Amino acid sequence: MSTTASVPAEAPAAGSVTCVDFWCNEFGMRARLALREKRVPFEYVEEDLRVRERSALVRRMNPAHAAVPILIHAGRPVCGSLNIVEYVDEPLGGRRLLPADPLERARARFWAGFVDREVYGAQTRMFTSRGEEKANAAAELLGHLRRLEAELGDRDFFGGDEFGFLDVAFLPFSTMFYGYGQHGGVDVEAECPALARWVARCAARESARDVLPSGVDMYAIHKEFYGIE
Amino acid sequence: MSTTASVPAEAPAAGSVTCVDFWCNEFGMRARLALREKRVPFEYVEEDLRVRERSALVRRMNPAHAAVPILIHAGRPVCGSLNIVEYVDEPLGGRRLLPADPLERARARFWAGFVDREVYGAQTRMFTSRGEEKANAAAELLGHLRRLEAELGDRDFFGGDEFGFLDVAFLPFSTMFYGYGQHGGVDVEAECPALARWVARCAARESARDVLPSGVDMYAIHKEFYGIE
Repeated sequence: MSTTASVPAEAPAAGSVTCVDFWCNEFGMRARLALREKRVPFEYVEEDLRVRERSALVRRMNPAHAAVPILIHAGRPVCGSLNIVEYVDEPLGGRRLLPADPLERARARFWAGFVDREVYGAQTRMFTSRGEEKANAAAELLGHLRRLEAELGDRDFFGGDEFGFLDVAFLPFSTMFYGYGQHGGVDVEAECPALARWVARCAARESARDVLPSGVDMYAIHKEFYGIE
Repeated sequence: MSTTASVPAEAPAAGSVTCVDFWCNEFGMRARLALREKRVPFEYVEEDLRVRERSALVRRMNPAHAAVPILIHAGRPVCGSLNIVEYVDEPLGGRRLLPADPLERARARFWAGFVDREVYGAQTRMFTSRGEEKANAAAELLGHLRRLEAELGDRDFFGGDEFGFLDVAFLPFSTMFYGYGQHGGVDVEAECPALARWVARCAARESARDVLPSGVDMYAIHKEFYGIE
Protein backbone atom coordinates (compact mmCIF):
# COMPACT_ATOMS: atom_id res chain seq x y z
CA MET A 1 0.00 0.00 0.00
CA SER A 2 2.82 2.47 0.60
CA THR A 3 6.36 3.21 -0.44
CA THR A 4 7.76 3.76 3.04
CA ALA A 5 7.80 1.40 5.97
CA SER A 6 6.92 4.11 8.46
CA VAL A 7 3.53 5.06 7.01
CA PRO A 8 0.85 4.26 9.57
CA ALA A 9 -1.87 1.93 8.32
CA GLU A 10 -4.53 3.91 10.15
CA ALA A 11 -5.11 7.61 10.71
CA PRO A 12 -3.33 8.77 13.87
CA ALA A 13 -5.12 8.91 17.21
CA ALA A 14 -7.18 11.98 18.08
CA GLY A 15 -5.00 14.95 18.94
CA SER A 16 -1.83 13.53 17.45
CA VAL A 17 0.05 15.45 14.76
CA THR A 18 1.78 13.86 11.78
CA CYS A 19 3.75 15.69 9.10
CA VAL A 20 4.21 13.89 5.79
CA ASP A 21 7.03 15.39 3.76
CA PHE A 22 10.32 14.75 1.95
CA TRP A 23 13.51 16.05 3.56
CA CYS A 24 14.55 18.36 0.70
CA ASN A 25 11.12 19.91 0.01
CA GLU A 26 11.40 23.66 0.62
CA PHE A 27 7.64 23.93 1.06
CA GLY A 28 7.51 21.12 3.57
CA MET A 29 10.38 22.63 5.56
CA ARG A 30 8.02 25.51 6.30
CA ALA A 31 5.61 23.15 8.00
CA ARG A 32 8.38 21.49 10.00
CA LEU A 33 9.96 24.81 10.99
CA ALA A 34 6.58 26.07 12.21
CA LEU A 35 5.98 22.89 14.22
CA ARG A 36 9.44 23.16 15.84
CA GLU A 37 9.06 26.87 16.53
CA LYS A 38 5.67 26.27 18.13
CA ARG A 39 7.07 23.27 20.03
CA VAL A 40 4.34 20.97 18.73
CA PRO A 41 5.38 17.31 19.03
CA PHE A 42 4.78 15.46 15.76
CA GLU A 43 5.49 12.24 13.98
CA TYR A 44 7.46 12.70 10.80
CA VAL A 45 6.60 10.44 7.86
CA GLU A 46 8.98 10.57 4.93
CA GLU A 47 7.46 10.46 1.44
CA ASP A 48 10.25 9.77 -1.03
CA LEU A 49 9.47 12.08 -3.96
CA ARG A 50 12.01 10.27 -6.13
CA VAL A 51 9.55 7.37 -6.26
CA ARG A 52 7.11 8.09 -9.09
CA GLU A 53 3.90 6.98 -7.41
CA ARG A 54 2.68 8.66 -4.26
CA SER A 55 1.89 6.55 -1.19
CA ALA A 56 -1.67 5.52 -0.33
CA LEU A 57 -1.53 7.85 2.68
CA VAL A 58 -0.70 10.88 0.52
CA ARG A 59 -3.31 10.00 -2.11
CA ARG A 60 -5.93 9.53 0.57
CA MET A 61 -5.09 12.65 2.58
CA ASN A 62 -4.57 14.99 -0.41
CA PRO A 63 -6.63 13.54 -3.28
CA ALA A 64 -6.75 16.84 -5.18
CA HIS A 65 -2.97 17.14 -5.56
CA ALA A 66 -1.39 13.98 -4.09
CA ALA A 67 1.39 16.28 -2.89
CA VAL A 68 3.32 16.93 0.32
CA PRO A 69 3.60 18.51 2.82
CA ILE A 70 0.49 17.24 4.56
CA LEU A 71 -0.21 17.89 8.21
CA ILE A 72 -2.53 15.35 9.76
CA HIS A 73 -4.13 16.48 12.99
CA ALA A 74 -6.43 14.12 14.80
CA GLY A 75 -6.83 12.18 11.55
CA ARG A 76 -7.80 15.16 9.41
CA PRO A 77 -5.50 16.61 6.75
CA VAL A 78 -4.31 20.17 6.26
CA CYS A 79 -2.66 20.66 2.86
CA GLY A 80 -0.64 23.50 1.36
CA SER A 81 2.52 24.69 3.08
CA LEU A 82 1.46 28.23 4.04
CA ASN A 83 -1.95 26.91 5.00
CA ILE A 84 -0.21 24.48 7.36
CA VAL A 85 1.88 27.28 8.89
CA GLU A 86 -1.30 29.34 9.46
CA TYR A 87 -2.98 26.30 10.97
CA VAL A 88 -0.08 25.45 13.25
CA ASP A 89 0.03 29.10 14.30
CA GLU A 90 -3.64 29.14 15.29
CA PRO A 91 -4.87 26.40 17.59
CA LEU A 92 -1.66 24.62 18.45
CA GLY A 93 -0.36 27.01 21.11
CA GLY A 94 2.82 29.01 21.66
CA ARG A 95 4.03 32.42 20.43
CA ARG A 96 2.26 33.61 17.25
CA LEU A 97 4.30 33.52 14.05
CA LEU A 98 1.96 35.88 12.19
CA PRO A 99 2.18 39.56 13.18
CA ALA A 100 -0.51 40.84 15.54
CA ASP A 101 -1.19 43.91 13.40
CA PRO A 102 -3.63 43.08 10.56
CA LEU A 103 -1.79 45.18 7.97
CA GLU A 104 1.54 43.63 8.92
CA ARG A 105 -0.13 40.21 8.76
CA ALA A 106 -1.39 40.96 5.25
CA ARG A 107 2.09 42.16 4.31
CA ALA A 108 3.72 38.94 5.57
CA ARG A 109 1.18 36.82 3.66
CA PHE A 110 1.75 38.89 0.52
CA TRP A 111 5.53 38.34 0.58
CA ALA A 112 5.10 34.65 1.36
CA GLY A 113 3.02 34.45 -1.82
CA PHE A 114 5.78 36.35 -3.62
CA VAL A 115 8.27 33.67 -2.54
CA ASP A 116 5.90 30.94 -3.81
CA ARG A 117 5.28 32.44 -7.20
CA GLU A 118 8.28 34.60 -8.03
CA VAL A 119 11.24 33.10 -6.17
CA TYR A 120 10.21 29.47 -6.69
CA GLY A 121 9.16 30.20 -10.27
CA ALA A 122 12.47 31.80 -11.24
CA GLN A 123 14.43 29.14 -9.32
CA THR A 124 12.64 26.36 -11.20
CA ARG A 125 13.15 28.06 -14.57
CA MET A 126 16.85 28.55 -13.78
CA PHE A 127 17.32 24.86 -12.97
CA THR A 128 15.33 23.61 -15.97
CA SER A 129 16.71 25.78 -18.79
CA ARG A 130 19.96 26.55 -20.54
CA GLY A 131 21.75 29.40 -22.25
CA GLU A 132 19.93 32.71 -22.51
CA GLU A 133 16.77 31.45 -20.82
CA LYS A 134 18.81 30.25 -17.83
CA ALA A 135 20.69 33.58 -17.66
CA ASN A 136 17.39 35.48 -17.73
CA ALA A 137 15.93 33.31 -14.98
CA ALA A 138 19.05 33.85 -12.85
CA ALA A 139 18.78 37.62 -13.33
CA GLU A 140 15.07 37.52 -12.42
CA LEU A 141 15.81 35.42 -9.37
CA LEU A 142 18.41 37.92 -8.20
CA GLY A 143 15.90 40.73 -8.72
CA HIS A 144 13.39 38.89 -6.51
CA LEU A 145 16.02 38.35 -3.80
CA ARG A 146 16.87 42.05 -3.89
CA ARG A 147 13.19 42.89 -3.38
CA LEU A 148 13.13 40.59 -0.37
CA GLU A 149 16.33 42.17 0.94
CA ALA A 150 14.66 45.58 0.65
CA GLU A 151 11.61 44.21 2.48
CA LEU A 152 13.87 42.93 5.29
CA GLY A 153 15.52 46.35 5.58
CA ASP A 154 17.66 46.68 8.68
CA ARG A 155 15.51 44.41 10.83
CA ASP A 156 16.80 41.19 12.37
CA PHE A 157 13.90 39.15 11.00
CA PHE A 158 11.14 39.77 8.47
CA GLY A 159 8.79 39.77 11.43
CA GLY A 160 10.88 42.48 13.17
CA ASP A 161 12.66 41.50 16.39
CA GLU A 162 11.10 38.03 16.38
CA PHE A 163 11.37 35.16 13.93
CA GLY A 164 7.94 34.94 12.30
CA PHE A 165 5.70 33.87 9.44
CA LEU A 166 7.66 35.27 6.50
CA ASP A 167 10.92 34.00 8.01
CA VAL A 168 9.37 30.52 8.13
CA ALA A 169 8.08 30.89 4.57
CA PHE A 170 11.32 32.12 3.00
CA LEU A 171 14.09 30.50 5.08
CA PRO A 172 13.80 27.05 3.42
CA PHE A 173 14.74 28.66 0.10
CA SER A 174 18.05 29.77 1.61
CA THR A 175 19.11 26.12 1.43
CA MET A 176 19.11 26.64 -2.36
CA PHE A 177 21.45 29.67 -2.25
CA TYR A 178 24.50 27.42 -2.63
CA GLY A 179 22.87 25.92 -5.73
CA TYR A 180 21.96 29.40 -7.02
CA GLY A 181 25.69 30.19 -7.00
CA GLN A 182 26.92 26.87 -8.37
CA HIS A 183 24.31 26.51 -11.07
CA GLY A 184 23.34 30.07 -11.98
CA GLY A 185 26.24 32.25 -10.78
CA VAL A 186 23.90 34.06 -8.37
CA ASP A 187 26.17 35.05 -5.47
CA VAL A 188 23.66 35.85 -2.74
CA GLU A 189 26.31 36.71 -0.14
CA ALA A 190 27.89 39.36 -2.39
CA GLU A 191 24.68 40.69 -3.94
CA CYS A 192 22.38 40.59 -0.90
CA PRO A 193 24.59 40.90 2.18
CA ALA A 194 21.72 41.72 4.55
CA LEU A 195 19.88 38.62 3.38
CA ALA A 196 23.03 36.54 3.95
CA ARG A 197 23.29 37.91 7.52
CA TRP A 198 19.59 37.08 8.04
CA VAL A 199 20.23 33.48 6.91
CA ALA A 200 23.13 33.16 9.37
CA ARG A 201 20.97 34.58 12.16
CA CYS A 202 18.13 32.14 11.41
CA ALA A 203 20.45 29.18 10.92
CA ALA A 204 21.52 29.45 14.55
CA ARG A 205 17.99 28.61 15.70
CA GLU A 206 17.26 25.12 16.98
CA SER A 207 14.34 24.75 14.57
CA ALA A 208 16.51 25.61 11.59
CA ARG A 209 19.32 23.29 12.68
CA ASP A 210 16.78 20.47 12.97
CA VAL A 211 14.99 21.07 9.70
CA LEU A 212 17.25 22.66 7.08
CA PRO A 213 19.56 20.43 5.02
CA SER A 214 22.93 21.74 3.85
CA GLY A 215 23.19 23.68 0.62
CA VAL A 216 25.51 21.00 -0.74
CA ASP A 217 22.94 18.24 -0.12
CA MET A 218 20.15 20.38 -1.55
CA TYR A 219 22.12 21.13 -4.70
CA ALA A 220 23.02 17.45 -5.11
CA ILE A 221 19.42 16.23 -4.93
CA HIS A 222 18.12 19.04 -7.13
CA LYS A 223 20.69 18.08 -9.76
CA GLU A 224 19.28 14.55 -9.53
CA PHE A 225 15.67 15.83 -9.80
CA TYR A 226 16.36 18.09 -12.75
CA GLY A 227 18.75 15.70 -14.50
CA ILE A 228 21.67 18.14 -14.32
CA GLU A 229 25.09 16.60 -15.03
CA MET B 1 0.25 60.22 -14.00
CA SER B 2 -2.70 57.90 -14.40
CA THR B 3 -4.92 56.31 -16.98
CA THR B 4 -8.21 57.04 -15.23
CA ALA B 5 -9.61 60.36 -14.14
CA SER B 6 -10.81 59.01 -10.83
CA VAL B 7 -7.41 58.03 -9.38
CA PRO B 8 -6.75 60.20 -6.34
CA ALA B 9 -3.50 62.17 -6.46
CA GLU B 10 -2.86 61.45 -2.80
CA ALA B 11 -3.32 58.40 -0.58
CA PRO B 12 -6.81 58.38 0.94
CA ALA B 13 -7.48 59.84 4.36
CA ALA B 14 -6.84 57.72 7.45
CA GLY B 15 -9.47 55.03 7.87
CA SER B 16 -10.83 55.25 4.35
CA VAL B 17 -10.90 52.17 2.12
CA THR B 18 -10.20 52.16 -1.61
CA CYS B 19 -10.35 49.17 -3.92
CA VAL B 20 -8.42 49.41 -7.19
CA ASP B 21 -9.59 46.85 -9.71
CA PHE B 22 -10.94 46.24 -13.22
CA TRP B 23 -14.60 45.26 -13.57
CA CYS B 24 -13.99 41.87 -15.24
CA ASN B 25 -11.13 40.69 -13.00
CA GLU B 26 -12.25 37.47 -11.27
CA PHE B 27 -9.63 37.95 -8.56
CA GLY B 28 -10.66 41.52 -7.87
CA MET B 29 -14.33 40.51 -7.67
CA ARG B 30 -13.39 38.55 -4.56
CA ALA B 31 -12.20 41.72 -2.86
CA ARG B 32 -15.34 43.60 -3.86
CA LEU B 33 -17.66 40.76 -2.83
CA ALA B 34 -15.96 40.58 0.57
CA LEU B 35 -16.26 44.34 1.06
CA ARG B 36 -19.97 44.24 0.15
CA GLU B 37 -20.64 41.20 2.32
CA LYS B 38 -18.93 42.88 5.26
CA ARG B 39 -20.72 46.16 4.49
CA VAL B 40 -17.47 48.12 4.38
CA PRO B 41 -17.94 51.41 2.51
CA PHE B 42 -15.20 51.86 -0.08
CA GLU B 43 -14.19 53.98 -3.02
CA TYR B 44 -13.84 52.02 -6.24
CA VAL B 45 -11.05 53.03 -8.60
CA GLU B 46 -11.12 51.39 -12.01
CA GLU B 47 -7.78 50.35 -13.52
CA ASP B 48 -8.34 49.60 -17.19
CA LEU B 49 -6.28 46.46 -17.78
CA ARG B 50 -6.68 46.87 -21.56
CA VAL B 51 -4.25 49.79 -21.29
CA ARG B 52 -0.73 48.38 -21.43
CA GLU B 53 0.90 50.51 -18.76
CA ARG B 54 -0.33 50.41 -15.17
CA SER B 55 -1.29 53.65 -13.44
CA ALA B 56 1.09 55.44 -11.10
CA LEU B 57 -1.18 54.50 -8.19
CA VAL B 58 -0.93 50.78 -8.97
CA ARG B 59 2.82 50.90 -9.51
CA ARG B 60 3.29 52.78 -6.26
CA MET B 61 0.95 50.62 -4.17
CA ASN B 62 2.04 47.25 -5.61
CA PRO B 63 5.61 47.72 -6.89
CA ALA B 64 6.38 43.98 -6.78
CA HIS B 65 3.64 43.02 -9.26
CA ALA B 66 1.97 46.25 -10.49
CA ALA B 67 -1.26 44.22 -10.45
CA VAL B 68 -4.83 44.64 -9.18
CA PRO B 69 -6.81 44.18 -7.02
CA ILE B 70 -5.27 46.44 -4.42
CA LEU B 71 -7.05 47.39 -1.24
CA ILE B 72 -5.83 50.65 0.24
CA HIS B 73 -6.74 51.14 3.87
CA ALA B 74 -5.71 54.35 5.58
CA GLY B 75 -3.14 54.86 2.83
CA ARG B 76 -1.51 51.45 3.15
CA PRO B 77 -1.86 48.74 0.50
CA VAL B 78 -3.00 45.15 0.85
CA CYS B 79 -2.27 43.11 -2.30
CA GLY B 80 -3.32 39.66 -3.45
CA SER B 81 -7.01 38.81 -3.72
CA LEU B 82 -7.29 36.13 -1.01
CA ASN B 83 -5.03 38.20 1.21
CA ILE B 84 -7.47 41.09 0.79
CA VAL B 85 -10.44 38.86 1.67
CA GLU B 86 -8.62 37.67 4.82
CA TYR B 87 -7.81 41.27 5.69
CA VAL B 88 -11.33 42.53 5.13
CA ASP B 89 -12.57 39.62 7.23
CA GLU B 90 -10.35 40.51 10.16
CA PRO B 91 -10.42 44.08 11.41
CA LEU B 92 -13.17 45.57 9.31
CA GLY B 93 -16.15 44.28 11.30
CA GLY B 94 -19.26 42.22 10.53
CA ARG B 95 -19.91 38.48 10.29
CA ARG B 96 -16.77 36.39 9.66
CA LEU B 97 -16.39 34.89 6.19
CA LEU B 98 -13.76 32.36 7.29
CA PRO B 99 -15.07 29.39 9.30
CA ALA B 100 -14.61 29.56 13.06
CA ASP B 101 -13.21 26.02 13.24
CA PRO B 102 -9.46 26.00 12.46
CA LEU B 103 -9.61 22.79 10.40
CA GLU B 104 -12.55 24.11 8.39
CA ARG B 105 -10.66 27.37 7.96
CA ALA B 106 -7.64 25.48 6.62
CA ARG B 107 -9.93 23.54 4.32
CA ALA B 108 -11.52 26.71 2.90
CA ARG B 109 -8.07 28.23 2.32
CA PHE B 110 -6.89 25.03 0.62
CA TRP B 111 -9.78 25.01 -1.86
CA ALA B 112 -9.40 28.73 -2.52
CA GLY B 113 -5.80 27.95 -3.50
CA PHE B 114 -7.11 25.12 -5.68
CA VAL B 115 -9.33 27.61 -7.52
CA ASP B 116 -6.33 29.93 -8.03
CA ARG B 117 -3.98 27.32 -9.38
CA GLU B 118 -6.11 24.60 -10.93
CA VAL B 119 -9.34 26.27 -12.07
CA TYR B 120 -7.70 29.51 -13.21
CA GLY B 121 -4.78 27.58 -14.73
CA ALA B 122 -7.00 25.25 -16.79
CA GLN B 123 -9.32 28.14 -17.75
CA THR B 124 -6.38 30.18 -19.02
CA ARG B 125 -4.95 27.23 -20.98
CA MET B 126 -8.37 26.56 -22.51
CA PHE B 127 -8.71 30.16 -23.72
CA THR B 128 -5.14 30.40 -25.04
CA SER B 129 -4.81 27.11 -26.94
CA ARG B 130 -6.38 25.25 -29.84
CA GLY B 131 -7.13 21.73 -30.96
CA GLU B 132 -6.03 18.90 -28.70
CA GLU B 133 -4.42 21.17 -26.12
CA LYS B 134 -7.66 23.13 -25.81
CA ALA B 135 -9.71 19.92 -25.51
CA ASN B 136 -7.36 18.65 -22.80
CA ALA B 137 -7.60 21.91 -20.89
CA ALA B 138 -11.42 21.80 -21.12
CA ALA B 139 -11.44 18.23 -19.77
CA GLU B 140 -9.11 19.22 -16.93
CA LEU B 141 -11.26 22.24 -16.14
CA LEU B 142 -14.35 20.05 -15.93
CA GLY B 143 -12.48 17.67 -13.62
CA HIS B 144 -11.62 20.57 -11.31
CA LEU B 145 -15.24 21.75 -11.30
CA ARG B 146 -16.38 18.24 -10.40
CA ARG B 147 -13.96 18.21 -7.46
CA LEU B 148 -15.43 21.49 -6.29
CA GLU B 149 -18.94 20.12 -6.72
CA ALA B 150 -17.95 17.16 -4.54
CA GLU B 151 -16.50 19.56 -1.96
CA LEU B 152 -19.79 21.50 -1.94
CA GLY B 153 -21.74 18.27 -1.38
CA ASP B 154 -25.34 18.91 -0.43
CA ARG B 155 -24.69 22.11 1.46
CA ASP B 156 -26.17 25.46 0.42
CA PHE B 157 -22.78 27.18 0.45
CA PHE B 158 -19.16 26.02 0.65
CA GLY B 159 -19.15 27.55 4.11
CA GLY B 160 -22.22 25.47 5.10
CA ASP B 161 -25.43 27.37 5.83
CA GLU B 162 -23.73 30.73 5.41
CA PHE B 163 -22.04 32.33 2.41
CA GLY B 164 -18.34 32.39 3.33
CA PHE B 165 -14.69 32.56 2.32
CA LEU B 166 -14.62 29.83 -0.34
CA ASP B 167 -17.90 31.09 -1.80
CA VAL B 168 -16.27 34.52 -2.16
CA ALA B 169 -13.13 32.97 -3.66
CA PHE B 170 -14.87 30.77 -6.23
CA LEU B 171 -18.07 32.65 -7.15
CA PRO B 172 -16.33 35.17 -9.46
CA PHE B 173 -15.25 32.26 -11.68
CA SER B 174 -18.90 31.36 -12.23
CA THR B 175 -19.10 34.45 -14.45
CA MET B 176 -16.86 32.48 -16.84
CA PHE B 177 -19.18 29.43 -17.00
CA TYR B 178 -21.00 30.89 -20.03
CA GLY B 179 -17.62 31.26 -21.74
CA TYR B 180 -16.62 27.72 -20.68
CA GLY B 181 -19.64 26.48 -22.64
CA GLN B 182 -19.27 28.77 -25.65
CA HIS B 183 -15.54 28.39 -26.06
CA GLY B 184 -14.75 24.95 -24.68
CA GLY B 185 -18.04 23.03 -24.74
CA VAL B 186 -17.95 22.69 -20.94
CA ASP B 187 -21.63 22.60 -19.95
CA VAL B 188 -21.48 23.32 -16.23
CA GLU B 189 -25.24 23.18 -15.73
CA ALA B 190 -25.48 19.67 -17.18
CA GLU B 191 -22.22 18.31 -15.75
CA CYS B 192 -22.27 19.93 -12.31
CA PRO B 193 -25.94 20.56 -11.42
CA ALA B 194 -25.27 21.17 -7.71
CA LEU B 195 -22.68 23.78 -8.62
CA ALA B 196 -25.18 25.42 -10.98
CA ARG B 197 -27.74 25.58 -8.16
CA TRP B 198 -25.09 27.06 -5.87
CA VAL B 199 -24.38 29.79 -8.46
CA ALA B 200 -28.09 30.63 -8.68
CA ARG B 201 -28.33 30.76 -4.89
CA CYS B 202 -25.30 33.08 -4.62
CA ALA B 203 -26.38 35.25 -7.57
CA ALA B 204 -29.48 36.28 -5.61
CA ARG B 205 -27.32 38.02 -3.00
CA GLU B 206 -27.05 41.79 -3.08
CA SER B 207 -23.23 41.58 -3.08
CA ALA B 208 -23.22 39.31 -6.12
CA ARG B 209 -25.75 41.45 -8.00
CA ASP B 210 -23.55 44.49 -7.37
CA VAL B 211 -20.24 42.92 -8.27
CA LEU B 212 -20.62 40.11 -10.83
CA PRO B 213 -20.83 40.97 -14.53
CA SER B 214 -22.94 38.84 -16.87
CA GLY B 215 -21.45 35.76 -18.48
CA VAL B 216 -22.02 37.32 -21.90
CA ASP B 217 -20.02 40.45 -20.99
CA MET B 218 -17.27 38.32 -19.41
CA TYR B 219 -16.97 36.12 -22.47
CA ALA B 220 -16.90 39.18 -24.76
CA ILE B 221 -14.04 40.87 -22.92
CA HIS B 222 -12.07 37.65 -22.53
CA LYS B 223 -12.32 37.10 -26.27
CA GLU B 224 -10.87 40.60 -26.64
CA PHE B 225 -8.07 39.85 -24.12
CA TYR B 226 -7.13 36.54 -25.67
CA GLY B 227 -7.58 37.66 -29.27
CA ILE B 228 -10.30 35.08 -29.94
CA GLU B 229 -12.30 35.69 -33.15
